[in-house]
Amino acid sequence: MTEAANLEKIVIAMAQDACDAAAGLLTLSRAEKDRALLRVAELLDRRRVTIQAENKKDLEAGRAKGLSLAMLDRLELSDKVIDSMISGLHEVCGLADPVGAVENLSLRPNGLQVGRMRVPLGVIAMIYESRPNVTIDAAALCLKTGNAVILRGGSEAIHSNIALAGLLQDALADVGIHEKAVQVVPVTDRKAVHILLQQDEYIDLVIPRGGEGLIRSVSESSRIPVLKHYKGVCHIYVDNDADLAKATPIILNAKTQRPGVCNALEGVLVHQAVAEKYVPELVKALTEAGVEVRGCEKSVALNPLVKAATNEDWGREFLDLVLVLKVVDGMGEAMAYIRRYGSQHTEVILTENYTKARKFVAQVDASAVMVNASTRFNDGGQLGLGTEIGISTTKLHAYGPMGLEELTTRKFVVFGEGQVRD
Amino acid sequence: MTEAANLEKIVIAMAQDACDAAAGLLTLSRAEKDRALLRVAELLDRRRVTIQAENKKDLEAGRAKGLSLAMLDRLELSDKVIDSMISGLHEVCGLADPVGAVENLSLRPNGLQVGRMRVPLGVIAMIYESRPNVTIDAAALCLKTGNAVILRGGSEAIHSNIALAGLLQDALADVGIHEKAVQVVPVTDRKAVHILLQQDEYIDLVIPRGGEGLIRSVSESSRIPVLKHYKGVCHIYVDNDADLAKATPIILNAKTQRPGVCNALEGVLVHQAVAEKYVPELVKALTEAGVEVRGCEKSVALNPLVKAATNEDWGREFLDLVLVLKVVDGMGEAMAYIRRYGSQHTEVILTENYTKARKFVAQVDASAVMVNASTRFNDGGQLGLGTEIGISTTKLHAYGPMGLEELTTRKFVVFGEGQVRD
Repeated sequence: MTEAANLEKIVIAMAQDACDAAAGLLTLSRAEKDRALLRVAELLDRRRVTIQAENKKDLEAGRAKGLSLAMLDRLELSDKVIDSMISGLHEVCGLADPVGAVENLSLRPNGLQVGRMRVPLGVIAMIYESRPNVTIDAAALCLKTGNAVILRGGSEAIHSNIALAGLLQDALADVGIHEKAVQVVPVTDRKAVHILLQQDEYIDLVIPRGGEGLIRSVSESSRIPVLKHYKGVCHIYVDNDADLAKATPIILNAKTQRPGVCNALEGVLVHQAVAEKYVPELVKALTEAGVEVRGCEKSVALNPLVKAATNEDWGREFLDLVLVLKVVDGMGEAMAYIRRYGSQHTEVILTENYTKARKFVAQVDASAVMVNASTRFNDGGQLGLGTEIGISTTKLHAYGPMGLEELTTRKFVVFGEGQVRD
Repeated sequence: MTEAANLEKIVIAMAQDACDAAAGLLTLSRAEKDRALLRVAELLDRRRVTIQAENKKDLEAGRAKGLSLAMLDRLELSDKVIDSMISGLHEVCGLADPVGAVENLSLRPNGLQVGRMRVPLGVIAMIYESRPNVTIDAAALCLKTGNAVILRGGSEAIHSNIALAGLLQDALADVGIHEKAVQVVPVTDRKAVHILLQQDEYIDLVIPRGGEGLIRSVSESSRIPVLKHYKGVCHIYVDNDADLAKATPIILNAKTQRPGVCNALEGVLVHQAVAEKYVPELVKALTEAGVEVRGCEKSVALNPLVKAATNEDWGREFLDLVLVLKVVDGMGEAMAYIRRYGSQHTEVILTENYTKARKFVAQVDASAVMVNASTRFNDGGQLGLGTEIGISTTKLHAYGPMGLEELTTRKFVVFGEGQVRD
């Protein structure tokens, strides 16, 4: 058998095994799934030395390959990282299990009782980059929701991920769950991903986590539905009816609390009626916080600290201490700007005006639309989902942060007493 | 410009126009959308003669091409069909508008109020086969939910569809809605579909409606998410605890009430403990109703009217007065059979046993799982959705019949009073 044919055989067998395992997961109670999660936590604690020895191989190879310090840091399974993986598992145990809940159970005129029951999606493939702790996080969320999962981490983390896969499968076997419910693709060959993405007969959903390049390449070659998370170009519109005392703390928080993440602020729009008063004050506060402000002509004229923005700056995801500032003639222009330059991630209005707040919330198209709050709240934990497996910026199935419920679907359940259709 | 480049230009412009129109639809109230639907109904009534003259061109071309009588029948916009299109529009008017409803509005510990608002998906492309009344039905459901739609019907219906598109756009213009909210692809060239399916920048969802070939070819070439509806291989399992007096009417209804549709019955599984008593009785009733029964060895032995099933018969979608019959040793074997041969459409258990009913409902993976009722109830209208734009047999976004709610998604809405993230 050629090497390519062999790889195809391995990957297809994984997908088939996952599918078989998924059928078994349908019958598990929450208690059984939680027991598996606790067993994973226990083994992680006990096998630290072995896991870290495998992780060291990845770190050494990474150093030899000249990975950046930031990448090596993300790759490392330090005691602290392992502790946080363990506490993450305990947190997932504490969350309610959405599976089996029946919504909208109601009677039809003919006496049929119809409801919609939450059920697992089936088999999920996760494709992610370097951090090996995602292997445990993703496995925990999928297991909790009764989904089988095939994990494909970055090639730099291959030894760590294979060791974690062994641990996960041992934990499943210990509690009597089909061990193929969690699998790690054991080879680094990129062709394996392509083969995996063709298995629409066995796999129900693909979740890529990483840079835009990864997400685009997965979406383009996948025959399986993909939940995509493109960039976050988030805006705050400061209305002429805003409480300006609230505005600066919100804008500073949104831009500076963690500038490298997708829900960080990238652009501020200020109503012209308050621009003369507010722009100088805001620019001063931003500059003092180390933020570079690139602005429109009007804002440059209002404060010499503002650099003139170039065409490429509008709509750019800086992921850094830089933002664009534009004076607009009202909410209409702000909404048109957001439609043109936003990425449907997070959009905020600051206003005390009831009608404008309602209109902005109803009409702006983004995964989260907020009034008088920081963009940084667009996060599964902050919005009350308990956890998050990713953020969807496309609208099908999920829009915004995805928690446990988004890893399930609803089937119809019908209770009859002999009804037939006329 | 070459013809191919010109076609591409036309289709891309349609997608962009739809996207612009969709932004305008976000601001419409239910009353405005209903007014548009009523105007469509009015124009349909007034322009019968014109529409039917265009339809006649399609019918004549169809006859010349040798279309079957069944196809010509589906193509015809008779007065009766137009009347039913009009009454369909009135029905959609009467349905509640899901857009704008906010679910789960609740407070976070920091006082943020978080909810999930139903919003339109954006732009939907519908690709369907001959029946031109789908043009009006699909346009109505998309418009009601605030989605722009691009319609691509069968080439045999091109004159009818272009006439209906003109009517739809006139109605929209009459009530002040962007007329590009509803568009029909005005050419029959198949390349237009391929170009359309690449416009993932502008189009949010593709719904193909038609045979398995159409659905497979759309899914394979689409870069946009596709809601798929594959075949319906539906089963009824007659448990040893079934009330056999209910069983025969349900099975006859499921098989014979409309054998050519996806929720018709294709296979019956009978518990061995009741087979000796029930199989002869059931086969007699089915045979008298004109149904051909193909069975396993045991059922052939129980009644000479049963023909031996071939390997290809198990799991086949007959769409005709034929079904397969198998004696199983219990619910476990029935569920294993369904996992192997079912198409995740509709699965039914007939039993009076509480525990088995609950277990079957929880563990069988299908878009509708029923107890003591006919498979024919897996239909949007019958299950209480009011209407149906299709049935999804894949699990992402929707599983089972899709009504108005399934043409929407949920965004997060957040009401703050100055909160920032720690």
